[in-house]
Amino acid sequence: MPKDMTIHTSDTAIFERRESAARSYCRGIPTVFASASGSIMRGADGAEHIDFLAGCSSLNYGHNDPDMKAALIAHLTADGIAHGLDLHTTAKAAFLDAFESHILAPRGMDHRVMFTGPTGANAVEAAMKIARKSTGRTNIVAFTNGFHGVTMGALAATGNGYHRGGAGMETQGVTRVPYDNYADGLDSAALLDQMLSDNSGGIDAPAAIMLETVQGEGGLNAASAEFVRAVADIAKRHGALLILDDIQAGCGRTGKFFSFEEMGVMPDLVPMAKSVSGFGLPMALVLVRPQHDVFGPAEHNGTFRGNTHAFVTARVAIEKFWADSAFEADLSRRAALIETRLTELASLIPGAYLKGRGLMRGVDVGTGELAGAICKRAFQGGLIIETSGNEDQVVKVLAPLTTPDALLSRGFDILLDAARDVLSTTKIAAE
Amino acid sequence: MPKDMTIHTSDTAIFERRESAARSYCRGIPTVFASASGSIMRGADGAEHIDFLAGCSSLNYGHNDPDMKAALIAHLTADGIAHGLDLHTTAKAAFLDAFESHILAPRGMDHRVMFTGPTGANAVEAAMKIARKSTGRTNIVAFTNGFHGVTMGALAATGNGYHRGGAGMETQGVTRVPYDNYADGLDSAALLDQMLSDNSGGIDAPAAIMLETVQGEGGLNAASAEFVRAVADIAKRHGALLILDDIQAGCGRTGKFFSFEEMGVMPDLVPMAKSVSGFGLPMALVLVRPQHDVFGPAEHNGTFRGNTHAFVTARVAIEKFWADSAFEADLSRRAALIETRLTELASLIPGAYLKGRGLMRGVDVGTGELAGAICKRAFQGGLIIETSGNEDQVVKVLAPLTTPDALLSRGFDILLDAARDVLSTTKIAAE
Amino acid sequence: MPKDMTIHTSDTAIFERRESAARSYCRGIPTVFASASGSIMRGADGAEHIDFLAGCSSLNYGHNDPDMKAALIAHLTADGIAHGLDLHTTAKAAFLDAFESHILAPRGMDHRVMFTGPTGANAVEAAMKIARKSTGRTNIVAFTNGFHGVTMGALAATGNGYHRGGAGMETQGVTRVPYDNYADGLDSAALLDQMLSDNSGGIDAPAAIMLETVQGEGGLNAASAEFVRAVADIAKRHGALLILDDIQAGCGRTGKFFSFEEMGVMPDLVPMAKSVSGFGLPMALVLVRPQHDVFGPAEHNGTFRGNTHAFVTARVAIEKFWADSAFEADLSRRAALIETRLTELASLIPGAYLKGRGLMRGVDVGTGELAGAICKRAFQGGLIIETSGNEDQVVKVLAPLTTPDALLSRGFDILLDAARDVLSTTKIAAE
Amino acid sequence: MPKDMTIHTSDTAIFERRESAARSYCRGIPTVFASASGSIMRGADGAEHIDFLAGCSSLNYGHNDPDMKAALIAHLTADGIAHGLDLHTTAKAAFLDAFESHILAPRGMDHRVMFTGPTGANAVEAAMKIARKSTGRTNIVAFTNGFHGVTMGALAATGNGYHRGGAGMETQGVTRVPYDNYADGLDSAALLDQMLSDNSGGIDAPAAIMLETVQGEGGLNAASAEFVRAVADIAKRHGALLILDDIQAGCGRTGKFFSFEEMGVMPDLVPMAKSVSGFGLPMALVLVRPQHDVFGPAEHNGTFRGNTHAFVTARVAIEKFWADSAFEADLSRRAALIETRLTELASLIPGAYLKGRGLMRGVDVGTGELAGAICKRAFQGGLIIETSGNEDQVVKVLAPLTTPDALLSRGFDILLDAARDVLSTTKIAAE
Repeated sequence: MPKDMTIHTSDTAIFERRESAARSYCRGIPTVFASASGSIMRGADGAEHIDFLAGCSSLNYGHNDPDMKAALIAHLTADGIAHGLDLHTTAKAAFLDAFESHILAPRGMDHRVMFTGPTGANAVEAAMKIARKSTGRTNIVAFTNGFHGVTMGALAATGNGYHRGGAGMETQGVTRVPYDNYADGLDSAALLDQMLSDNSGGIDAPAAIMLETVQGEGGLNAASAEFVRAVADIAKRHGALLILDDIQAGCGRTGKFFSFEEMGVMPDLVPMAKSVSGFGLPMALVLVRPQHDVFGPAEHNGTFRGNTHAFVTARVAIEKFWADSAFEADLSRRAALIETRLTELASLIPGAYLKGRGLMRGVDVGTGELAGAICKRAFQGGLIIETSGNEDQVVKVLAPLTTPDALLSRGFDILLDAARDVLSTTKIAAE
Repeated sequence: MPKDMTIHTSDTAIFERRESAARSYCRGIPTVFASASGSIMRGADGAEHIDFLAGCSSLNYGHNDPDMKAALIAHLTADGIAHGLDLHTTAKAAFLDAFESHILAPRGMDHRVMFTGPTGANAVEAAMKIARKSTGRTNIVAFTNGFHGVTMGALAATGNGYHRGGAGMETQGVTRVPYDNYADGLDSAALLDQMLSDNSGGIDAPAAIMLETVQGEGGLNAASAEFVRAVADIAKRHGALLILDDIQAGCGRTGKFFSFEEMGVMPDLVPMAKSVSGFGLPMALVLVRPQHDVFGPAEHNGTFRGNTHAFVTARVAIEKFWADSAFEADLSRRAALIETRLTELASLIPGAYLKGRGLMRGVDVGTGELAGAICKRAFQGGLIIETSGNEDQVVKVLAPLTTPDALLSRGFDILLDAARDVLSTTKIAAE
Repeated sequence: MPKDMTIHTSDTAIFERRESAARSYCRGIPTVFASASGSIMRGADGAEHIDFLAGCSSLNYGHNDPDMKAALIAHLTADGIAHGLDLHTTAKAAFLDAFESHILAPRGMDHRVMFTGPTGANAVEAAMKIARKSTGRTNIVAFTNGFHGVTMGALAATGNGYHRGGAGMETQGVTRVPYDNYADGLDSAALLDQMLSDNSGGIDAPAAIMLETVQGEGGLNAASAEFVRAVADIAKRHGALLILDDIQAGCGRTGKFFSFEEMGVMPDLVPMAKSVSGFGLPMALVLVRPQHDVFGPAEHNGTFRGNTHAFVTARVAIEKFWADSAFEADLSRRAALIETRLTELASLIPGAYLKGRGLMRGVDVGTGELAGAICKRAFQGGLIIETSGNEDQVVKVLAPLTTPDALLSRGFDILLDAARDVLSTTKIAAE
Repeated sequence: MPKDMTIHTSDTAIFERRESAARSYCRGIPTVFASASGSIMRGADGAEHIDFLAGCSSLNYGHNDPDMKAALIAHLTADGIAHGLDLHTTAKAAFLDAFESHILAPRGMDHRVMFTGPTGANAVEAAMKIARKSTGRTNIVAFTNGFHGVTMGALAATGNGYHRGGAGMETQGVTRVPYDNYADGLDSAALLDQMLSDNSGGIDAPAAIMLETVQGEGGLNAASAEFVRAVADIAKRHGALLILDDIQAGCGRTGKFFSFEEMGVMPDLVPMAKSVSGFGLPMALVLVRPQHDVFGPAEHNGTFRGNTHAFVTARVAIEKFWADSAFEADLSRRAALIETRLTELASLIPGAYLKGRGLMRGVDVGTGELAGAICKRAFQGGLIIETSGNEDQVVKVLAPLTTPDALLSRGFDILLDAARDVLSTTKIAAE
């Protein structure tokens, strides 16, 4: 009998005994999961939960998409390559063909694809290194509330003090500036431009300016197209590369494949990860304009820089969802639905307001305490949902983009009920 | 028809057009691979190659091990979790159970398992951060020719100047000292001890001393047990943690599960990756002694820190190969066989000598030019093999630990023929 | 015959042959000076120049003040200590007595005096180190256009890109933020407070906030008392020390002994240099509140940390100018006079406006080209005056505080004539 | 009545009340000094002490040399420039003329003179910056037990952990390697060469190698000429500049003007300070070969970069002591005398041995406790003398080079008596 079967949903002793205290999501979502499909996750006991977390946007197409699954099983059955370093493989060629045909070429992008170690942080590290090597400069401008990973290079660009504190030492090489709409009445881009233009502004000439168009971990702060264009223009005028970190916001999450489409900018470097494999498998890459493709062979290397299983599912994802405009067209309809329901949620809570863009939305409910309580209650009701933001004050919806309308509605019903429950309990407690 | 089928072994245009110049192994091994099993890789045209590279020791149990493959197909078929962040899953529980029962407990190790982003570099970064956070110190002592990855934190600990150059900036927080047997007559450990003990030795009190017992990328330099013990003792006396990076040397590669077994040391932190999933899937972890398990929840995080498919295959690997002593016992026999054949190789080349330990062996042939020529010729003969070392002067054998004797012999025959060919050609050219 | 006598005003061959290209003021003021008294400098040929530069505010009491000179000659004649490391000397005791009695005690300051290496940069370095050691934090917040010296620690806090470029490497440990009135409509202090209060603001908890109340090198930008108070309050609330760098603005230059008097703040650390010796002799110190006097013996040392000759003149300066309120009272009168004449200057130039505070004033004439031309012409007329600012666009008046009214007027007459000449020439050239 | 007169030798309340805890020498030498001449320092009470400390080699020509004193009084009387920024002055011209004629030209040195802020640390910072700017590299190789100052740039090159600890943060940009004779049987230069030549040696290509030929603060470790030549050769072969820090060992201290004369090396950069003014006045400079004179105007600046009083005395020192060979010739005689007496001292103490070179000598007595006790007892006998070394275990003689034989003898008599007293007391205590 497979050993898995003997584990019960609440049997967490082995984790407490042997897993590091660094574990996190399992603390707020204390069940043992066994299987999942589409937007449903199942506990070892068979209990179903609607998934509005989607692996933090790593499962944009849902769990175990049947076509990707079939392709991966076929690959396995045929003894397809599992691990191939950065050797040429048929799976990689097929992915690159699909990515070129359906993603890059139609968008007029001449970028090359650099397969990095299969984590978003690794893609960010590679992008930062490329920018530095290509420009001969060190400084990278990053933004308040930006999140780019926790390895030392990327961590320097991550605004979150809790994560930076984990380094146990100072990070280097990054200048932090306010993001769009950071402070009342502040034109952040203009301030950055002024400081960079000022001989005594004290910001070293930057190798790159790096930003997310929507700050996923930072609280679903969505930059305006004007801001992104202004930053792109500043980068260009000051000889810096533009890095658009599309790890969380890319792969359709904002309604387009790239979050920066229709903004009128062409980034030099685009780190991608999370949903790029389509199936939740570890995969990361950096899109690099040819003139900045400056690494020598293996100069940035890594054992798993070709996760061949991920190439298999990623190809299916591209071909299934992005070969024509049907999926993209449907996304705006879904985004509107999400907005409607979150507006409903916000209306329940004094001072609450919507955050984000596309299908990467949430509600700032004012405090992390309240947001946490709502998510906890929602989990009891059968919904997996999490918070984000500098105070964890944003209830964040990252449902799979493929969630059927009925399930999406059911999820929001649970969420709204949870909010009402928490608010009434809080009100009673306060009285 | 699956697109893969349309790709020919020599059809590399898509890679040249769209893959970054950072690609590497594919330059010396210019074929397109389609499938693999055991110690054989097959090109898209069906041509077979014996694999003495094994994903740089990521495929210690060979390609597509049938039991792991079956378990993974079963997991997929049952809609097992593919991506679960760091939620509890049955697959993770089963892996932890197996790892505790068959690896940790029998070796008296009380370590906790921290699942990091699934790259060796990420595990190293986590270990370095833990050491710094736990000790309140910054400096980490690393060694000449050490290789620990290319993200900024790990890169500081990597000796290789080509890789460090890719950073485009100075790395921080690491002091480099000579490895065992680095210079004639030098007692490296004693020198380190003296400098650390000297008020004006100029090495800041270290958070950790980090080393590989065998430097895989650095040229298969194998430290003596005496040296490793001396370093462990120095770490202890100077209040530093001992980090044994077993990413390449672990998982049986030196003949034991851990490379430091039987050396009489108990490391505080052990980064692992490469073969830990058993199947070549991206997976990495750090073993952390409980007193140093100091990260708060998600303080070091990452989307793919639980690659659930890898848990499935890793569990099978542990249960199949390490539940009893049969596999380990056979490894020493194989190691002897490898030594015999490499001695044969070394005898062909004046000044050549054996490097490494266990099944992580090679021959220093004097120059990178000669080593590269031998590997290139070997590939033409049907053998995939690579070089390592600061001058790429070491022909390195990292065959799967499960390679059948006959195949191993065949591989060595090809290698020896290649060496003879190259040497005779060189000799003729010289005459 | 003393060798000096053989040197002519224009005999600069030895400087060109043997002095480093780093020499600077002598390029714009190409004469060889032999002697000076009060506000007059004399060339080797006896030609007199009015000094509106005053050693960049190092000669607030003029050249060769007769009382200080007499005291120093007496000290020399009596074989008084010239160099005493940090041994106790009668000269140091007398200085400390005077400094305590006439400066610290009347202002309710309990600070201790740390004698550092006799340069402003050294005092800044000491202050930064104290802040870091005392708080256990690394980051120091500094401001756009701030100037604190060019040794590596202080240079990190210096905004000027030309000076930072001289390092040949990245500086560390400083976060730069906009100074008071840096950008239109920006509340710089509020932005700093917001970023420090934001968990994801990305500014590490600071050891100190360091500023000049008037940025001398940065273009005579004068912070408002409200801004300085706001910064002091931010420092306190965020656990950071307040460092007020009074190297250029102190010693009466703004009309009070300290530039921050009457602002309602009590800095933790006050680096001082320039005019502290009174006579232009190298001397620097840091005022340190007792609770932050954390250095152990010689932890910050330096051979010349007691320049005993400077103690002699510094004591006289304190006793002569600061023992009663007469000098201070006269300063406001002089400041008004300077303001009147600079207003006159500004009125000549479209768009020009006054900068600075007290007797540290100037006019922003729009471009460094124009400012430089005016200063050059003024020198031809017998006035030594220099520019400052990020574009060298500010004509800066730093006349000795003791300049007699008639001489001050004559200096301004020369300056105004120079401006008129340059403007008419420019106008003619433009026509 | 001058205030000075009211201070008694033991009246130290003002220091305790108002001087920072960073004060140091005055703790072990607890008297208040009033005057000094030649090799004698006098307390406020008139008590005389022989000075074997000489301002840590800042008073190589003794206190208040009558010729320098006369020149300085004449300069003061004539209202000579006291502070002239880096303007041309007759005093600077006269110094440069003398320095060129009597020091640089006879030794075939084409170096330019850069006047830095008047501290040794500032000269070192300038030299490090020049090396980095000139080579475009960051890393500077420095040595165990080296001491180069405590500002952040220089501090990185200082081996002493107590001083580095004062920074409160990590220092950057320096690689520390063992000095000559650091460990038994170790060829330090060969090890450095090997690590720099090794692609994976992990030492970044250096901008400079910086060393003292005799480590004054580090315990009077004297490098052999062979070692210095080997290091010079390594620097040349690896494209690094050679910085010989002659701050303590220069100006005749080792028997020649420069400590590296007759070693067959020509350093690219020579930081000087301490005795360069001759009179103990703050003055520092860097000798820079023309091809590395890369600073732009004021790129490395500082208010006191021209201490004109020091130019006056420095010129006299050069002309008086170095215009012919008489002084130098006498130094070797004195050095022999010192060696004889220190040999006598060493013979008293089991295991003790001589350190240093020329007139920069001492005895390693085994422990800091013993060395401190001997110096303390010597002070009671009328001799000012200090310790050095990583454990303060070296009794260090830095008597003025001009100390008359009789006084030198008397000093040694006191020292030997002190040693005998301490040893007999210790022996009695032990019995």
